[in-house]
Amino acid sequence: MIMKEKKAVVLLSGGLDSATVGAVARQQGYRLYCLSFDYGQRHQCELEAADKVAQSLSAVHHLILRLDLNRIGGSSLTDRNLEVPRNQVGSSGQEIPITYVPARNTIFIAHAVAWAETLEARDIFLGVNAVDYSGYPDCRPAFIQAMERAVNLGTKLGVGEDDRYFRLHAPLIKLSKHEIIQLGTRLGVDYGLTHSCYDPDARGRPCGQCDSCCLRLQGFAAAGLEDPLAYQSR
Amino acid sequence: MIMKEKKAVVLLSGGLDSATVGAVARQQGYRLYCLSFDYGQRHQCELEAADKVAQSLSAVHHLILRLDLNRIGGSSLTDRNLEVPRNQVGSSGQEIPITYVPARNTIFIAHAVAWAETLEARDIFLGVNAVDYSGYPDCRPAFIQAMERAVNLGTKLGVGEDDRYFRLHAPLIKLSKHEIIQLGTRLGVDYGLTHSCYDPDARGRPCGQCDSCCLRLQGFAAAGLEDPLAYQSR
Repeated sequence: MIMKEKKAVVLLSGGLDSATVGAVARQQGYRLYCLSFDYGQRHQCELEAADKVAQSLSAVHHLILRLDLNRIGGSSLTDRNLEVPRNQVGSSGQEIPITYVPARNTIFIAHAVAWAETLEARDIFLGVNAVDYSGYPDCRPAFIQAMERAVNLGTKLGVGEDDRYFRLHAPLIKLSKHEIIQLGTRLGVDYGLTHSCYDPDARGRPCGQCDSCCLRLQGFAAAGLEDPLAYQSR
Repeated sequence: MIMKEKKAVVLLSGGLDSATVGAVARQQGYRLYCLSFDYGQRHQCELEAADKVAQSLSAVHHLILRLDLNRIGGSSLTDRNLEVPRNQVGSSGQEIPITYVPARNTIFIAHAVAWAETLEARDIFLGVNAVDYSGYPDCRPAFIQAMERAVNLGTKLGVGEDDRYFRLHAPLIKLSKHEIIQLGTRLGVDYGLTHSCYDPDARGRPCGQCDSCCLRLQGFAAAGLEDPLAYQSR
C-alpha cells in the first residue's frame, strides 16, 4: 500500500542537533523541507554545513531565508562589537549567555510555520534541547508549547482544526548531548558535515573553545565516540 | 517631577490603523520606536508612508527590516502570480481572503519583541483590529494573547518577570474603522500621510476598489469625514 507522503519542515542550522532531528523526521517517513536562515551570524559556514546536511538527508528542498537580525543587535552572534565567550560552560550557572539572540527561535518558528502553511505541511521539527538550553529561554518546553498554541491561533490552516493543525516537534528536547549523538549515529548522521562552532577561523575550522564546541566535544566524549571534525587546536 | 521616559515599539505599516495606534502610544507618554518591514509586498509605497507617519509622530527611530516573505509565497500580497481581489468586501463571508500572508503577524511580532528586548522596552503596540480582521486569523484577540504568553516564555527579559515582561497592546482591536478614524482625528493624525491600498498605480495613488480601500472609504463615510487621499477613480 502506498501511503500519501507526509511533509515536514525541518529547521536546519547546520549544527549537530538539527542534523539529528532531520534524521529523526526522515526515519518517521516524512519528506523533508529544510529551512535555514542567513541572519548575519558570525559563523557563515553554518549555512554551507546546513546545505550539505540537507543533501545528505535527501531533502526535497532547502530554503535559506535572509533575516535582518544584525540590525536589531543584542547578541555576540550577530553584533561584531561583542565578543564570543570562551571556556565558560559550567561557570555561567543559570545566567543567559551573551550568545543569546533576542527572540531568535520565535522568529525562526514563525517563518517555519509560514512556509509549512504554504506547503500544507503540518509538522515542524526543531533541534532544541535541554543541554543546548544552557540558559536560552527559547529552548524550554513551556515556550515550544506556548508557541505551538499561538501559531495555530494565528494561521489560516491552524484556525479551523481545534487549534492544533501545526505541530511543533522537538524530539531532542529532553536528551543530553551524548544521547543525541548516539541517536544520530544509529540513524546514520554524518557529523563530519555539521558545524557547531560560534567562532571558527577563516578556513571554517572550529575553535574547540567556545560554549558550543565545548558542549559538542563533551558530548562525543560521553558517547564514547570520536568527533570527525578537525579543530584548530586542542 | 520628571518621569523616566517609557519606550514603545510600534509596528507601523504606513496604513491608517497603525498610524492611529502610534498616536495612541504617543499620547500615553511613550517615546516611539517604529518598526516596518520590507517583505516584497506589492504596495511598496506603504514604506514611504510609514516613514512620513513616523516623522509626524516624532519617533525616536524608524527601523525598516527586510524579510524574505516573497520566497515563502502563499499570498497575493507577496506573490505576483496571484491577483488582488476587487470589490469583494461583504461578499467573502467568513472566508479568509487571498491577501492573507501566512503567519505574517507572528513574524512581525517576533521581530518587534526582539527589538524591544534590545531596547529594554516592554511595550509593543499593534494596529490589529476587528474590522481589518475580515478573516485574518492573526488579528484575533485570542492569537494576540497566546503570542504575548509565548514571547514572554521565549525571551531573556520575559522569563524572569512572572511571564509578563512584554506587553502586546492592541488598542484598536475592538473598534470599527470609523471609530478608529474618529479617534485618530481627535489625536491629530494626518491621514493624508497614510497608505492603505493593496494595488496602487505607478504614482502610488490608491485604487479605491480593493478590500483595503473599500474598508477605508466606508470608514471615512461612516465617521462623517473626508478621506484626504486622492484616488485613481471613484
